[in-house]
Amino acid sequence: MSENKLRILTGDRPTGPLHLGHYVGSLQNRVILQNQGEYQQYILIADTQALTDHFSEPLKVQENILEVTMDYLAVGIDPNLSTICVQSLLTALPEITMYFLNLLTLNQIERNPTVKEEIKQKDFGNKIPVGFLIYPVSQAADITAFLADLVPVGADQIPMIEDTNFIVRKFNDMYGAGTLKECKAKVPEQFSRLIGIDGKAKMSKSLGNCIYLKSTSDELWTQVKQMYTDPNHIRVEDPGQIEGNVVFTYLDAFDENKQEVARLKDHYRQGGLGDMKIKKYLFEVLDNKFKGIRERRLELAADKAQIIKILKEGTLKANEVSQATLSKMKRAMKMFEFV
Amino acid sequence: MSENKLRILTGDRPTGPLHLGHYVGSLQNRVILQNQGEYQQYILIADTQALTDHFSEPLKVQENILEVTMDYLAVGIDPNLSTICVQSLLTALPEITMYFLNLLTLNQIERNPTVKEEIKQKDFGNKIPVGFLIYPVSQAADITAFLADLVPVGADQIPMIEDTNFIVRKFNDMYGAGTLKECKAKVPEQFSRLIGIDGKAKMSKSLGNCIYLKSTSDELWTQVKQMYTDPNHIRVEDPGQIEGNVVFTYLDAFDENKQEVARLKDHYRQGGLGDMKIKKYLFEVLDNKFKGIRERRLELAADKAQIIKILKEGTLKANEVSQATLSKMKRAMKMFEFV
Repeated sequence: MSENKLRILTGDRPTGPLHLGHYVGSLQNRVILQNQGEYQQYILIADTQALTDHFSEPLKVQENILEVTMDYLAVGIDPNLSTICVQSLLTALPEITMYFLNLLTLNQIERNPTVKEEIKQKDFGNKIPVGFLIYPVSQAADITAFLADLVPVGADQIPMIEDTNFIVRKFNDMYGAGTLKECKAKVPEQFSRLIGIDGKAKMSKSLGNCIYLKSTSDELWTQVKQMYTDPNHIRVEDPGQIEGNVVFTYLDAFDENKQEVARLKDHYRQGGLGDMKIKKYLFEVLDNKFKGIRERRLELAADKAQIIKILKEGTLKANEVSQATLSKMKRAMKMFEFV
Repeated sequence: MSENKLRILTGDRPTGPLHLGHYVGSLQNRVILQNQGEYQQYILIADTQALTDHFSEPLKVQENILEVTMDYLAVGIDPNLSTICVQSLLTALPEITMYFLNLLTLNQIERNPTVKEEIKQKDFGNKIPVGFLIYPVSQAADITAFLADLVPVGADQIPMIEDTNFIVRKFNDMYGAGTLKECKAKVPEQFSRLIGIDGKAKMSKSLGNCIYLKSTSDELWTQVKQMYTDPNHIRVEDPGQIEGNVVFTYLDAFDENKQEVARLKDHYRQGGLGDMKIKKYLFEVLDNKFKGIRERRLELAADKAQIIKILKEGTLKANEVSQATLSKMKRAMKMFEFV
């Protein structure tokens, strides 16, 4: 049954617990796709990939595997419907990566604009770890190992998908038509990227501008209070600006009462609506929206054995699928085997 | 018992049957080391590595695995004393490679003079396959997976060993002192590289200047007849030159009767010794030396099942050793595991 469903590969690097940016950018969409029932979804906790730029902190990466799993389950990922798995335990992936590395040139990798941009951001200078440089190839291995049809990514990640499909076509041309499957990028239409509470850049752990899914009410209020609004909106009666105002950006993202949001915007623009008031309103919206998730997460954290069991079952299943792909590839390549 | 022996890792890319260059450069030495009984020797048939520059010919690589194994056994590698194994079936190796790739920068790899030289020779231009570029890292994984103490290499391969030890030190510094072992290059004192029958370069399948171990007597004679001698030695009575004369180079390498070789050299230099005569003499030397090997190889070829059994047992054993190293590494890195 699930064999005929379109397959989705998605996942996260476990470098910290997940935040509202993840929720808006991917988690809520995964739950929707899962519950539509049309897709077979694999969610990869990419610890090996996280090590490509966190290789000096493997313990942090390891500890966040359970954190991230709890976030998944808390937001509504159902292990009976979606498969959650740990990348470093899927031994087919590095094998597939090794074969793929022969099919791409150094120039092609260096040309990839996503990698270029990330290398610049990370300030590696002339010390680019080879593992980081080649992570698009390892990502191509992840995608093809699961024979994924769809890969939910931001628009900036499209070159990754193009590299993957280049490799797939080259593999199929060289070793056997139809062995591997090309995939499509699934780019969300809106809110693909949530701005951080400082208003400066996307929400990101390393920038310290995050609200975590597991934040308590008190933490949530502290973070909402710090939000960047309109720096020229000094007195309550002054007219305020909506554009670039993080509170309104978040209301657009999270408040389902669109009419009330429109009314508040008008009021704020005209003057007479204080920052503290709209922050309190946003706090209520967020607190209501994430209360259930936070509570479920607390319950989950109380039973680690159950989390581990879920991860183990998911990883076993993912191992079967990815090993089957590797076997198919090796047969196509006519690799040596003992019969 | 074998636990206390120094470990050697060595091997070949299975891109063709082995030739006299292999015999002189490594095979005869392996047999000596094996029979000394002081070393535990692992011989890796590096099919995955062969694919880094033969990825369009995987079937050729696969077929040569058995060819190379037969060559090993024919020259005297004893599977009870040495372990012969197939690289692509050792799944710990790509995993180790992935972790190592994070510890070396692109600059470091590009600086490696061996890789630089090989890239130039192979005329990749700006199309260097990433797999080829990073093969020193995969080689470092091979070496450390077997916790090798010694790696027999030519002098030109020393930078490879240095890169390996750099990675080992960085791994140990970062994840745990003493996890992995540094190795030493074991550079042979003489005849490390046999010139091809054309006298132009080292013996190499791709240059078509080889004599294969499995050559029949007739083939051997054909190849000896083609050998480059002294182009100015036209008439028998002319004085001839020894330097650069392939026949004498081979006599130095293969004839145990050093006195007779010295006498022939004198005679040739003075004039009066014809090329055909020394070629016939060399043919006899080679034919006698390799007759036993050739005959054993024919016997071996008649029982493929036995060859496969030997490879399977060696690969099983190598899998145990390399998986144990990987486990040790992953524990040191504190990678996630199910208990």
